Amino acid sequence: MTEPNSRAGWARPPADPDGDEFAVIGRLAARLPPAPPGETWIGDDAAVVAPPAGPLLLATDLTVAGVHADLALVGLDDLGWRSVATAVSDVAAMGGAPGQVLVAVAAPPGTDLDRLGAGVAEAAAAHACHLVGGDLSTADQVVVAVAVTGTVADGPPPVIRGGARPGDRLFVTGPLGAAAAGLRVLRSGGDGPLADRYRRPRARLAEGATARRAGASAMIDVSDGFAADVVHLAEASDVGLRLEEPPTADGATPAEALGGGDDYELILATADPDGLVAAFAAAGLGPPLAVGWCVEAAAGRWIGDRPLEPVGWRHRFG
Amino acid sequence: MTEPNSRAGWARPPADPDGDEFAVIGRLAARLPPAPPGETWIGDDAAVVAPPAGPLLLATDLTVAGVHADLALVGLDDLGWRSVATAVSDVAAMGGAPGQVLVAVAAPPGTDLDRLGAGVAEAAAAHACHLVGGDLSTADQVVVAVAVTGTVADGPPPVIRGGARPGDRLFVTGPLGAAAAGLRVLRSGGDGPLADRYRRPRARLAEGATARRAGASAMIDVSDGFAADVVHLAEASDVGLRLEEPPTADGATPAEALGGGDDYELILATADPDGLVAAFAAAGLGPPLAVGWCVEAAAGRWIGDRPLEPVGWRHRFG
Repeated sequence: MTEPNSRAGWARPPADPDGDEFAVIGRLAARLPPAPPGETWIGDDAAVVAPPAGPLLLATDLTVAGVHADLALVGLDDLGWRSVATAVSDVAAMGGAPGQVLVAVAAPPGTDLDRLGAGVAEAAAAHACHLVGGDLSTADQVVVAVAVTGTVADGPPPVIRGGARPGDRLFVTGPLGAAAAGLRVLRSGGDGPLADRYRRPRARLAEGATARRAGASAMIDVSDGFAADVVHLAEASDVGLRLEEPPTADGATPAEALGGGDDYELILATADPDGLVAAFAAAGLGPPLAVGWCVEAAAGRWIGDRPLEPVGWRHRFG
Repeated sequence: MTEPNSRAGWARPPADPDGDEFAVIGRLAARLPPAPPGETWIGDDAAVVAPPAGPLLLATDLTVAGVHADLALVGLDDLGWRSVATAVSDVAAMGGAPGQVLVAVAAPPGTDLDRLGAGVAEAAAAHACHLVGGDLSTADQVVVAVAVTGTVADGPPPVIRGGARPGDRLFVTGPLGAAAAGLRVLRSGGDGPLADRYRRPRARLAEGATARRAGASAMIDVSDGFAADVVHLAEASDVGLRLEEPPTADGATPAEALGGGDDYELILATADPDGLVAAFAAAGLGPPLAVGWCVEAAAGRWIGDRPLEPVGWRHRFG
């Protein structure tokens, strides 16, 4: 499989020239749009791009086969798509627009990297950003790390998690639980639109930018699950929560809406709910859905008449 | 070890709160310098930093335990250091200065992430850049993906690989083979300064920036090995090569100098060798070492009186 330390040693000629890392990269680069004049993308030590006019947003996200996606249920192209979409979602959650993505892929020999690369390229195109560089390595398991840049070109600064205040209204940008329901469908051997919500999530870029321009005070994307992520927002903002049951996507259960991750809808707080609703309507977006209020931290975190349990995914190393 | 798809499901409470991903991130953030006013670093969906005044350089690099570093020979802190240093080296090879690093770590439960994070933080400080974000996931193997930003604040634009022309002189920024020799020492149970060259490589940032300002026409870092990387430069520039044997580091063999990777010295071409030598002297750097000339592509690639074999490391997936 892999040769410990062999990078500092000697390489034999590749057994299959099509599987050579440089051949893989060349085929991927050939399916991407060309760099504009003055920029250098894939193929040099580093990419050279124009700096953003506004602040530079930076995020990275890992997608690990067997942890974030089961390759028995989704294709390598879906895994590639998801790795980009989830990283771009971090930019959406700041109200930003993505610029460039870098993709680092560790994978066992025999992995269909062309298929993975196709999903990466499709997701980059779908999210209006550019794949400008990456790295490849052999490994025992497919691990994809995507780094993404972004910016906000106009209006208020990026929306952090920590800006919510008691009295702010909380919204989500859409009903929740579709990805968890889609995973359930896939596990039971089914397929269809709900399964696609799990396989090919989309970052809510228009929603995030609209919320920022409308003065959202805090924002986060639903990656770990609504109950977990709303607590991240509350902790960063030092507020308490009075939540209603979150809206449930068609085909999903209330439990999936509350605890299922990977939806990538945005949770946001605002002191101007009417302005937010009007801005979404003016932008042609579906209406933001109210899910409760921020309260004083000392009032605790409640959903309906019960304490909020921060259920959701977290990685454990201990 | 890992739960397939469980991110979209439900998490149990962590068995060991110290091993929880958010606890690990919190301890790492506590050892880093604080973000300057107006910037947001670790802890939000994306970091927010000031954009560079010059072009934005972007690179990513993978470090995989068992492929790029054998954890029987180097510590997790060394692996963390290497993951940052090798990514920063890509910025050095453009003649740039690094800005921010993002670190994505996939690792099995039980991995000492605090030790890995210590090496990451030390390398970022040693290379004058800032860790501003990252991601953590469980996985079967330690995989670290570092993304780095950079820029060139003054003088000529970033130095790409493809700018060398026939007649340009070729240099390396120092003798080669130290990392491969250090690995050999470690494998034989030894230790010492040569082993440190393998464990804790340093990006040649001052050398790269000086070469850029002195008008270098092309540049690349020695990551895969001199013979492999000089061919990457020649292919990108469409030139042939007339090389001398590369200078050998103390304690290294000629074969290690020619084919050993991980040295992170820079190979550069210039039409003004006297100006380059003078610029290195003026900057207080060790003299660049001449290793040959670029010639017409049709003249082929030669080292001494034999054809150059592009020995060096490449990952194979076929």
